[in-house]
Amino acid sequence: MRMYDIIAKKRDGYELNDDEIRFFISGVCDGSIPDYETSALLMAIFLRGMDERETATLTDAMAHSGDTVDLSSFGSLSVDKHSTGGVGDKTSLIIAPIVASVGGVVAKMSGRGLGHTGGTVDKLESIPGYNTSLSPEDFLAQAEKIHLSIVGQSGNLTPADKKLYALRDVTATVNSIPLITSSIMSKKLAAGSRSIVLDVKIGSGAFMKTVDDAELLAREMVKIGRLCGRSISALLTDMDSPLGFAVGNSIEVIEAVDVLRGKLHGDLRDVCVVLATEMVSLALEVPAEDARSRVTEALDSGAAFEKMKEWIKTQGGDVRYIENTELFPKAAHSLDVKSPANGYVTKMDAEAIGITSVMLGAGRENKDDSIDHSAGIMIHAKVGDLVREGDVLSTLYTNDPASLEAAAERYLSAVTIGDVAPAKKPLIYKTVR
Amino acid sequence: MRMYDIIAKKRDGYELNDDEIRFFISGVCDGSIPDYETSALLMAIFLRGMDERETATLTDAMAHSGDTVDLSSFGSLSVDKHSTGGVGDKTSLIIAPIVASVGGVVAKMSGRGLGHTGGTVDKLESIPGYNTSLSPEDFLAQAEKIHLSIVGQSGNLTPADKKLYALRDVTATVNSIPLITSSIMSKKLAAGSRSIVLDVKIGSGAFMKTVDDAELLAREMVKIGRLCGRSISALLTDMDSPLGFAVGNSIEVIEAVDVLRGKLHGDLRDVCVVLATEMVSLALEVPAEDARSRVTEALDSGAAFEKMKEWIKTQGGDVRYIENTELFPKAAHSLDVKSPANGYVTKMDAEAIGITSVMLGAGRENKDDSIDHSAGIMIHAKVGDLVREGDVLSTLYTNDPASLEAAAERYLSAVTIGDVAPAKKPLIYKTVR
Repeated sequence: MRMYDIIAKKRDGYELNDDEIRFFISGVCDGSIPDYETSALLMAIFLRGMDERETATLTDAMAHSGDTVDLSSFGSLSVDKHSTGGVGDKTSLIIAPIVASVGGVVAKMSGRGLGHTGGTVDKLESIPGYNTSLSPEDFLAQAEKIHLSIVGQSGNLTPADKKLYALRDVTATVNSIPLITSSIMSKKLAAGSRSIVLDVKIGSGAFMKTVDDAELLAREMVKIGRLCGRSISALLTDMDSPLGFAVGNSIEVIEAVDVLRGKLHGDLRDVCVVLATEMVSLALEVPAEDARSRVTEALDSGAAFEKMKEWIKTQGGDVRYIENTELFPKAAHSLDVKSPANGYVTKMDAEAIGITSVMLGAGRENKDDSIDHSAGIMIHAKVGDLVREGDVLSTLYTNDPASLEAAAERYLSAVTIGDVAPAKKPLIYKTVR
Repeated sequence: MRMYDIIAKKRDGYELNDDEIRFFISGVCDGSIPDYETSALLMAIFLRGMDERETATLTDAMAHSGDTVDLSSFGSLSVDKHSTGGVGDKTSLIIAPIVASVGGVVAKMSGRGLGHTGGTVDKLESIPGYNTSLSPEDFLAQAEKIHLSIVGQSGNLTPADKKLYALRDVTATVNSIPLITSSIMSKKLAAGSRSIVLDVKIGSGAFMKTVDDAELLAREMVKIGRLCGRSISALLTDMDSPLGFAVGNSIEVIEAVDVLRGKLHGDLRDVCVVLATEMVSLALEVPAEDARSRVTEALDSGAAFEKMKEWIKTQGGDVRYIENTELFPKAAHSLDVKSPANGYVTKMDAEAIGITSVMLGAGRENKDDSIDHSAGIMIHAKVGDLVREGDVLSTLYTNDPASLEAAAERYLSAVTIGDVAPAKKPLIYKTVR
């Protein structure tokens, strides 16, 4: 088999067979296929597409290109959630204890933040003592014991995806449905959970800017997940505004605790209920209404909050911070961003707000940047709110006072104030099963 | 300017502007653009195409990526011929002296043979003493003095083409009209002649297998040549059978001498007259009929043959070999290939016959292989000829007797004998001006 012939076949619009796809992925991993051939094939795939069978095989080959997590001992109970990346997205911190408290098993690897999106692992590391790098044995043992374990990515998961993504990133071949699908789904397959709920974000802060694009991607990922033997569904959720009010690390943990304690209602809680319901329905194989009442019961009874404390404690974190969030250190400097006019908040650019939080020290521009766990943004006015000139739109927190002025400017430019109240957008656009 | 944006633009089907194309070629040459980005763009160009303006700019940028030959002192008289590569194609050896003898200037760099196609430089080197590596000064001085000089490629002509071709060759992006056009035409532009005649071969021994494909390419090359300021036309000629009877090196020189001496008429002479007529018409800026009568007069009067002798002598070759071709050393071994049946020769696979001559030592499989100048094939029966079982179809010549048996088998498999006389194919399909 020759890579040349594989490139020519896809170039001419033909389907690649399974052997060809596996030959390609194995050659990418062992270095026998040079980058210039890989990028020629990626461009041919971008322009010619791949059908479901090809994409499923590509996904499976990538999933098995490195280490995989074996969660088979949990049977159908293991369930994962994947978000395509948002701003202020602390849903994992809320959903995981809900699902674990009703019997699902959330044994999950999470990422770190990069660019305008934050990462669950960074947020958890703002809790003193929390250990994001358990050994594989401890990770599994904890999941066995308390049904919940969230760690950073370790081992050599999906090296094929790492290589392909690095090339796609520099050859303008990122935005292709089969390539996005295989990239995301291969990581989810390698991560081992039998059930998977995808949270596909839509809007200014998300990779997908329109409902149609997002639905196309969601349908493809659900199909491919199912072809690869997983229970899977996808929710299309709004990311035109940040989720909730906090954008940062410790302040997002505090917000998650507030939801689990029943102190905070609204959009964030609503999205979490829908996501957790979908996860419970898949993991416990129960109808959606049944799953939903278990989820709200777990929230209302405090069982989910108890599960969070058990989780943080078991994983080495100082649980006093969860019991009393006042203990989290505050940033040394803050600045109120004030409305320049009277009117309604008609638009918020979630991506720009994410970048503002990076400017304050809460995120990373580059992979190796360090993070200021107490930095971030508390949003006071969200889309639809009526504000007067001088009202506080948000408060910026940082330990680097030099960053405040530019961050405030950036924040202001991300918010549009208008005379007409904006139409209310749905939080959840669609469920794809 | 970023290569990423250029790739994305072409990927999405947009035209690249001149600055983008020149940025690409300059980055390919100075190594600042990595191969994986180049190959992604090549695949995007393959699948999205390029319009004439883009192709002309690409051609011009490639032509100026390295050394160029300055023939401007010859004004409109300098004229070049380019063949897309054939088997038994000794037309340059015949045309160049014809054109030079009537006042055109043929100052030409020619290639060496590779694979099934031979090279003019190899053929000339079968003449003892002929110097294919004149200095640039001597090359021009000779052209000035006798209007004719043919050397091997030297200097650093079109390094961009060398790099791009090497990548296209391994990424399945060779067969693209704008990429083929810019590759061929950039070399012709860099070679300096003001007038250019393209000989686009069609058939089993050629790159282009159909008249439609060849015409598409010819029209594009003529357009691009004209956009780049050259006088240019293209002839679509048959390469289903080898041209003439000899396939090799010294035996092709002998055949060329026979045509120039008026001893050999037929297809080969006819094609040469048409090509030379086109060249003379462009170089001397005279109507085709006028050019044609000058060309036949040069042949009939012996002026063209005298020019050949003057040329070979001036360039260091032993002219006695031209005056008496019996002096060329004969290969030590030969074998007659005999017809296995009665019937008409209905088909000859020119590519397979080219490969047969390589097996005998007359060509190269790899760039650094050495050549046996006396090896080759004399064809006795061509398409349309009636043969009887046992008639000699061809005679194989070699200094490597071990090659004879396999070569004979190969030759036989390249010839089809049938009951029905084949329809006569035109030698010249079309002239594109």
